[in-house]
Amino acid sequence: MNPSSTRRSGRISPIVLTMGDPAGVGPEIIAKAFGERPELLGQIVVAGDALTLSKAARLVATGSAPLMVAEIADLSDLAAVPPGCMAVVQACRMVQPAEFGHVSAHAGRAAADCVEWAAKAALEGRSRAVVTAPIHKEALAAAGVEHPGHTELLQALSATHLGVPVSALPVRMMLSCPGLSTVLVSIHVSLRQALDAVTTEQVLQTIRITNACFLRSGVARPRIAVAGLNPHAGEGGLFGLEDRDVIAPAIERARQEGVDASGPHAPDTVFMRARQGGFDVVVAMYHDQGLIPVKLLGLDDGVNTTLGLPFVRTSPDHGTAFDIAGTGRASASSLLAAIDAALAAAVTS
Amino acid sequence: MNPSSTRRSGRISPIVLTMGDPAGVGPEIIAKAFGERPELLGQIVVAGDALTLSKAARLVATGSAPLMVAEIADLSDLAAVPPGCMAVVQACRMVQPAEFGHVSAHAGRAAADCVEWAAKAALEGRSRAVVTAPIHKEALAAAGVEHPGHTELLQALSATHLGVPVSALPVRMMLSCPGLSTVLVSIHVSLRQALDAVTTEQVLQTIRITNACFLRSGVARPRIAVAGLNPHAGEGGLFGLEDRDVIAPAIERARQEGVDASGPHAPDTVFMRARQGGFDVVVAMYHDQGLIPVKLLGLDDGVNTTLGLPFVRTSPDHGTAFDIAGTGRASASSLLAAIDAALAAAVTS
Repeated sequence: MNPSSTRRSGRISPIVLTMGDPAGVGPEIIAKAFGERPELLGQIVVAGDALTLSKAARLVATGSAPLMVAEIADLSDLAAVPPGCMAVVQACRMVQPAEFGHVSAHAGRAAADCVEWAAKAALEGRSRAVVTAPIHKEALAAAGVEHPGHTELLQALSATHLGVPVSALPVRMMLSCPGLSTVLVSIHVSLRQALDAVTTEQVLQTIRITNACFLRSGVARPRIAVAGLNPHAGEGGLFGLEDRDVIAPAIERARQEGVDASGPHAPDTVFMRARQGGFDVVVAMYHDQGLIPVKLLGLDDGVNTTLGLPFVRTSPDHGTAFDIAGTGRASASSLLAAIDAALAAAVTS
Repeated sequence: MNPSSTRRSGRISPIVLTMGDPAGVGPEIIAKAFGERPELLGQIVVAGDALTLSKAARLVATGSAPLMVAEIADLSDLAAVPPGCMAVVQACRMVQPAEFGHVSAHAGRAAADCVEWAAKAALEGRSRAVVTAPIHKEALAAAGVEHPGHTELLQALSATHLGVPVSALPVRMMLSCPGLSTVLVSIHVSLRQALDAVTTEQVLQTIRITNACFLRSGVARPRIAVAGLNPHAGEGGLFGLEDRDVIAPAIERARQEGVDASGPHAPDTVFMRARQGGFDVVVAMYHDQGLIPVKLLGLDDGVNTTLGLPFVRTSPDHGTAFDIAGTGRASASSLLAAIDAALAAAVTS
C-alpha cells in the first residue's frame, strides 16, 4: 500500500466491489486482483461473503501467504483495516457453501444481495463507484430476481431510490477495450425482441446518453458512429427498411441537437473504422453486434460500463466461467481494467 | 512472368477474373494487382471491358508505363498474349463509359454480363476458378438482375447448367482472413428475414457443406463451431429459444453423421475462441455475425469463398467503394488474397 492511496482512502469514499456468483470465478479473480495490485486494497471494499472470499484467497495463494480478509461493518471502517488485508462487508447470507460451476438459487440470491448492498451505498453517496464481479443469469432467475442482469437490476434500484419510474432513468451498456468502445441499444433479450427495440426513440436516446457520457468524461465533441441494423445498412432498402426509416431519422434529430452523430453505417465495417480512429464510439443496435468486435479485440482487457445511472458502475466483460471456476486459472485482467476504469471515471465525475 | 507460370499456363486452364462494376474500384484494383504481382498475368484472364480496363491501367500507373491490355477472343488464346500484358475477353458491352461512384443500370448490366461469362467458362470446364471483383447491388437491381449478389447469381447459373432446381444446389458464403474463417447460414437478406432462415435444416446443411469443403481442402476432421443466434446462445432459454430448439438439434444430427460440430456457442466469444485456435471454422447464423469479426481482423486480407458451387469461386471481401473509385487509392490486397486462395483451391481440388 503506498502512502498516497492510504491518504486518499481516508478522504475519498471507497469503491465497492461485489463478489459475484460464489459458484463462479468472481471470488477468485477478486483475490487475484488484490494479489497483483495490493495498492488497490486501500480504496476498495468487497461486498460479499467473508468465508467465501477467504477460501478464494487461499485458492489463489501460490507459494506466498494468502491474503487476509478483514470483515468490516461499514464502509467508513476501511481506514481502520490493517495494511495488506481485503476489506469485506458481509452483504449476503450464505446458507451453504456454493458448489463451483453449478447454478443454484442460493448462490444467485447471495450474488443479488451483494449488488443491492453496493447499489444502496452508491445511491446514498457512501461509495464513489460500483464494480461488479460476474453473476450467472440462470442463478439470478432461479433466485426469483426478476431482472435478467446487473444493468436492469441497478436501473430498477436507482429508479426506486430516486422515486421515479424506470422509464425515466434510461440506461445503456457500454463495452470498451483498448481502441474500441460501443454502446448498445438493447442487451439481454432475444435477437427477435432486440429487433423490435430498434425504434427511432430508443436509438435517439442511446445517442443522447452516449454523447452526455463522453462529454462528461472530457471529450469535447464526441464522434458517434451509429451502426445500421441490416447487412450493408440495408443497401438502399434492398435488405430491410429499418436503417432508412427508423435509424436515419434518429441520427438526423441528434444532429439537429448539435451531436456529432453519423450513419447508419454498414455494421460489418463500422467497428474496423472506429478502431482505426474514425470515431470515438459506435452505437450498436443489439448485444452481439457490439460485443463480438469488443470481445475479439479486448481479449483480457474488456470493460463494461453502465451509462445513465446516478453513479459510476463498471464490470469485467466476461461471465462466471463456470467451466474453470475453483481452479484458480481465471485471469483478473478484465476485473483490474474495470477497477481502473471506475477509479478514473469516479475521479473525473 | 517466370518460366514455371508460363509453362503452367500452357497446361492448366486459366482463372477468370471478372471486372466488377465499372463505376467502382474493380477495374483499378485489377490493374494494381497485376502491377504488384506481374507473375499472375500468365494464369489469369479478365472478363470485362477492354477500354475500361485500359483506362484503369493508366489510372494506377505511377511513373512507370501503364500495363497494356491484350484483348483475346477466347481463354485458349492466353498462351499467345505477349509477356507483361493483361489478357481481357470482352465479356460485356459498355453503351457509355461508367461514371465513377454512381449507381447505373448499364454499369450493373455490364458487371452481371462479366459474371455470367465467367460462370459459363467455369461450368464448361474451360477455366479452373472464378475470382470476382466487387459489384454494386443497387446497380445490379437497376439492371433488372433478380439476384441480390454474386453468390445467388452464380448459384442460379450453376443450377441451370446442371439442369437441377436451385434448391438442389445449396451454397454458402465463407469469409476468411488470416486466423479466422466463418460460413454464413444466410447472407443478403434483412436481419428479420435472416432470423426466419435459421431452421434446423438450413443450419444442418450449412454444417454439412462446411465439413465437405474443409475435408476436400485437406483438413482430416474439421472442427466446426456453430454460433448461437441469441445473446449468450439464449442463456438456457432466457433470451430466446432458437438456440436450444432449432440450432442444437442440427448440431446433434451432424454429430450423428460423424461431423465434429459443437455448440451452439455464445456468439460474442466463439470467434475469439476460433481465432485462438479452438476451431477450424465458425458457422454463423447471419451476415453481420460472421462478417463483423472477419472484417475487423482481416483489414486488407479478407477473402470470400462460395462453398457448394461446381467450381471454385473467391472474391475480395470489400465492396465497390464508390467513395474512392477512380482515385487509384483502393488497395489490391484483398483481391490478391482472393486470387491466391483461388489458385490454392484450384490446385488441390
